[in-house]
Formats: sequence, structure tokens, C-alpha cells
Amino acid sequence: MNTTKVKAYGTEAKDKDLQEMTILRRDVQPNDIEIDILYCGVCHSDLHTARNDWGGTVYPAVPGHEIVGKVTKIGSEVTKYKVGDTVAVGCMVDSCRTCPSCQEGMEQYCDSGMTGTYNSKDKYFETQRTYGGYSQSVVVDEHYVLKVPENLDLAAVAPLLCAGITTYSPLRHWNVNKNSKVAVVGLGGLGHMALKLAKGMGAHVSLFSRTPSKEQDAKELGADEVIISTDEAHMKSVAGKFDLIIDTVPYDHNVQPYMQTLKVGGTHVLVGFIGNFEEPVSTKPMIYKRRSLAGSLIGGIAETQEMLDFCGEKNIVSDIEIIKIQDINDAYERMLKSDVKYRFVIDMKSLE
Amino acid sequence: MNTTKVKAYGTEAKDKDLQEMTILRRDVQPNDIEIDILYCGVCHSDLHTARNDWGGTVYPAVPGHEIVGKVTKIGSEVTKYKVGDTVAVGCMVDSCRTCPSCQEGMEQYCDSGMTGTYNSKDKYFETQRTYGGYSQSVVVDEHYVLKVPENLDLAAVAPLLCAGITTYSPLRHWNVNKNSKVAVVGLGGLGHMALKLAKGMGAHVSLFSRTPSKEQDAKELGADEVIISTDEAHMKSVAGKFDLIIDTVPYDHNVQPYMQTLKVGGTHVLVGFIGNFEEPVSTKPMIYKRRSLAGSLIGGIAETQEMLDFCGEKNIVSDIEIIKIQDINDAYERMLKSDVKYRFVIDMKSLE
Repeated sequence: MNTTKVKAYGTEAKDKDLQEMTILRRDVQPNDIEIDILYCGVCHSDLHTARNDWGGTVYPAVPGHEIVGKVTKIGSEVTKYKVGDTVAVGCMVDSCRTCPSCQEGMEQYCDSGMTGTYNSKDKYFETQRTYGGYSQSVVVDEHYVLKVPENLDLAAVAPLLCAGITTYSPLRHWNVNKNSKVAVVGLGGLGHMALKLAKGMGAHVSLFSRTPSKEQDAKELGADEVIISTDEAHMKSVAGKFDLIIDTVPYDHNVQPYMQTLKVGGTHVLVGFIGNFEEPVSTKPMIYKRRSLAGSLIGGIAETQEMLDFCGEKNIVSDIEIIKIQDINDAYERMLKSDVKYRFVIDMKSLE
Repeated sequence: MNTTKVKAYGTEAKDKDLQEMTILRRDVQPNDIEIDILYCGVCHSDLHTARNDWGGTVYPAVPGHEIVGKVTKIGSEVTKYKVGDTVAVGCMVDSCRTCPSCQEGMEQYCDSGMTGTYNSKDKYFETQRTYGGYSQSVVVDEHYVLKVPENLDLAAVAPLLCAGITTYSPLRHWNVNKNSKVAVVGLGGLGHMALKLAKGMGAHVSLFSRTPSKEQDAKELGADEVIISTDEAHMKSVAGKFDLIIDTVPYDHNVQPYMQTLKVGGTHVLVGFIGNFEEPVSTKPMIYKRRSLAGSLIGGIAETQEMLDFCGEKNIVSDIEIIKIQDINDAYERMLKSDVKYRFVIDMKSLE
């Protein structure tokens, strides 16, 4: 297979900074699209993968799965896109396409495991993993490429590809509409998108926050209400109020106080924390009000396109801070301190 | 308010045996029905309440919430029943009737808390709690009384009022039908009903069991398959198989191995264990396959009637062992050893 060398930013080991490197991209196959990357959002998963926080990172690792760019080349059998189109790639670039989940458009739950945009087994290369969007270009099968609405700011679209779809999918799956009361836990990249998207769907939206200081910001993002989760009386005042909680907290935390704020039949959906709850989970709030504790992972390809179209229609994008690729290591440090409103996006022109 | 003295069996303290006692029943009010109790099933909750295992028991306590009997008197405004009808009473005898849950026929999730058939605040008596079905008769508002299908064995109907509806409600709520694959954890009073009811709905039904010895029994009750939960290879062979798990285990246990056997979007419903899971709950099986961990509590009045009618149509009753009320203390000891197939039912004629 013919390949092309392209510039990228990645890391050689878990304790090393990211730096410029050269990687190989396959030449376009019949169903492939080559994309010149304009912007790439910076997700917490990028940092976790670079530093091998979850184990399983194979080095060199090139993160980035919130990709927006222009089509520069198409394969002979491509039908969905043409050169010059503005397109996007999210968290996956392949899946088995034959299992029930893939057949039903839920490629993220593929029985064989989806192919992640970075640090996944790459079926085109024996010796390298998939490399993400911190690079000049990427080659992706057209099925896993999304169309970007023309009216949106392209840099601010990038985070929709992970933070956006991760919160959109559970909002849709649990049927949020103008009669819904939704609460969001955590105001970061995912949380701020959850507020905007739930509001865009017409729901009444609340934010749980540990400090009153976020109230103004949350309201500007669309929250109708901020509930101070450390204030017992405040929490009690919203007992039984919500249809759905979108919990974006990325570390271990106690879900019990939030579960009590769900209506009969309500659902608390985890999208941020992958791990064990050390605090014992009580079955009482579940049994006594038929509540559910659930999880959700990004979204399928068709659903991601639906999300982008919805954002185009409602004029929803992420709140971002644009950085140069050379600032990525500093950006990771700031992310660890939650010092970003609400997503870093790399201007990939800085790599040239 | 006028009252009538009736014989009952109850306990004066958590460490005392149940014994014969006299209790007061209110005379029928305009919407009340007086029921001569023929049979009363013996539920684990009876034992837990008698022994104050959950705290909150007020003595004397008269358990019993799987009641079948004949109408002996009706109030002036009763329209649903007449003297001589065969009727049943389950786990609740009242609720607020005005909150959203009550209005939607989910009285078990009443915002003000339902009035349990025993050991609840009794709105007709200042000085006594509600007394259950271990007694000669009971007086209940007609709204909380069910009609018993004529074709069923009355003694074997009694456990449907708790064990039956507790498993029927989640099977219906999560839309079990002939295309569903359902698994049941635990083969006791609730578990054996879950097998029969899921089978009655046309589902493929599996039982998780720790020992192969229950295979024959489970298959006679309707199971298509028994999975040995302590056999890792066996568990792995059913990964991603089930739409719904009905978990009837009444004590703390690790749900992780079962969650893995759910399909994408599947739900593990807890109906038996009220308390904290000491084993840390992992979010991984939830997030990676959009699975839910949920709870469910008995069922509403209309749903309980629907369940009884369904059982009449499908000829489903509980497998029971009939005892005399004088044997109740021994029966409790045998229940603690799971030495019953699968529910004790008291022939209340033995109290005369």
C-alpha cells in the first residue's frame, strides 16, 4: 500500500511532552476521503491517552478526534463527498459494519469494537496504530466522515464531534423535548454542550454545581437554574424534579444525591467517568422510584450527522479558546486545572 | 369510628415468635369492602418486618400482603364489587390519589408514600398501624382491591399479589415480548414467578444459578436455559445476549458479571435487594454498551389487575406449599434456608 508522509504532533512516551513528528497516512483507497485538517478540538481523552492514564497506549501516539477540515482527494467509489467539501471526523474511523449495532447505526457499540480515531488497531497498517487529528491531514472511509453545516464557525464546530455528540446522543435516546426537565452535572467541555443542546431541544435545563461562582456562566450558556450540590436544602428542594441527568464528571463521585432529584422513572446517564464508584451504590433510589443509572458512549455516525444538522439549524457551537499546536502541552496542564472555557481547539495551520 | 375485633397472628417484639392476637378492623366506610381472608402468602418482607430487619417496625405487627378472600360486606358507595366476589389485596391499601404517580396509576410510587398493607400509618386509627393479612378479615377501600380470575386455584393466586406483580411490572415496563431474551437471577418466590411470567409473555427465558442442581426445576417452571453464574466460560458464552435481567436476589451481591450479559441498551432491574452494593459498581459495562441498572417496586393497582387477568388467561399461578397459621414461625426458619418451593401460603381457615 502506498503511503504519504505528513506532519503531526504526538508523544513517544507517557512522561514526554508532545512534539512534532512525521507519520504515514495511507493513500486514498476506493472508499476513502483525504482531509486537510483545519481545526482539531482537544478532549480529555487526548491527554489520558498521551499519558497512558487508562493503560493500552501504544507509542508514538497522535491524539485528536474532534476534526474539521476540507476534502482534498476522494477515492474512485466515493459518492457522499467531493473535493472542497467541509467535513468532520469524530471519535471513530471504522467498525465491523456487519454486527447488529453497526447495522442499526450504533457503530460506537460495535460488537468487535469500533476503530478509534487514534490509538486503535489500524486495519491498513501492520506496524502502526491509528493516528488522530493533531496532524496535517487524515484519510478516512467516507462512511465515517460527516458533513459540516455551512453556517457555523468551523473552529467552534470541532468539539461537537466528541463533546457535542456525547451529550446529544443520550438527550435524544431518552427523548428530551420541550416538556423535559434536564439537569447537567459538571460544567466543562461536555457539560457546557449538554446545557446548550438540551436548551436547543426546548427542555428546562438545570446545572448542578459545587460552587455558586458558575451561575452567571451557566445561565449565559442556557441554564434556567443552577443548583448548589453541596447545599442540602437546595438539593432537597429539587427532589423528584428531573426526567434526565447528564453526568459529565470525569472522575469518581457519589451519584446518590443526584439520583434523588430524578422523577419516578428518571434516568441518570454517565458520560464522563469510566471506572469504579468507590462509594457504595444504593439500590433504594432506584427501587423506590423506578429510576435508572445508565451510561452512554459518543453516538453513531447517522446520529452524529443529525447532531451537526441540528446544531446548524439551532446555531449551536462550542465555546472555545483557539491555540497553536505548539501550545498543546501547556493546554493539557490548563485542562487539568479546568482552566478553559470550555474547549481548546488547535488551529492546525500552526503546524505548517 | 366503629370497629370490630378480629383474630390475627402477629408479633409483639422483634425477638418474639408470632402468636395469636386480637386486632381492630374499622367498620366499612362508604367506599370500603370487608374481605373474609381465605389465603395469605408469606413474603420475605413479612419476616423482615416481624423481626425489624429494616428498622421502622411498630409493634404489635401483623404481616401479610398476599391476600385472597371473599367479599362479606360493602360500603354504600362501592361500585366495583358485590358480596360474594372473590377478591385480592396486595402490598398497598391506600395512597394520596392526587400526585402525578397516583394519577398515572403508579400508586406504588406515590409522592406521599403509599400506605402499605401492614406496618404503615393508618389514616383511620390514631393508635395503630395497618395490619396485614395474617388475620380473619380486612377492610380496604375498593380502589385498592383486585378481582381474582375464576379459573385459578385461589391459594396459588395469593403470591401473585406481591411476587407476581413485582416481576410482572418490570417485564411489562421494559416491553418484554416474544422477541425478547430475558434472564432471571435467583430462583425463589420472585424468581420462579419471573420465569413463568416472562415465558407467558413469549420471551426466551434463562435462569442464572450458582449451582447446576436447579436446572431441572427451572426448566419445569419455563426456563429455556440455565446459566451457571460461577462458571466463567459459561458466563462468557452469554455475553451481550439479554434484553432484560430481572434480579430477585434479596441480599448484597455483585451485579458486574450479569451486566456483561446484557445486549447494547439492555437493562438490569433490581427487585429484591434494598440496600448498598458494597462491591464497587463499575460504569464500564454501562457506558460501553448503553446499559442501565434500574429498580422496580411492585406495581400499580391497574397493572396488578392486568397481571391477574394475564395469569387467568395464561393459567399461571405460583408453586406453593400450604401451611397452617400455627406453623408460621417454622415457615420463617425454612424461608431463611430457602427451603420452600416456592412460596408458603397460609390457609387462613386454620385461624378459626
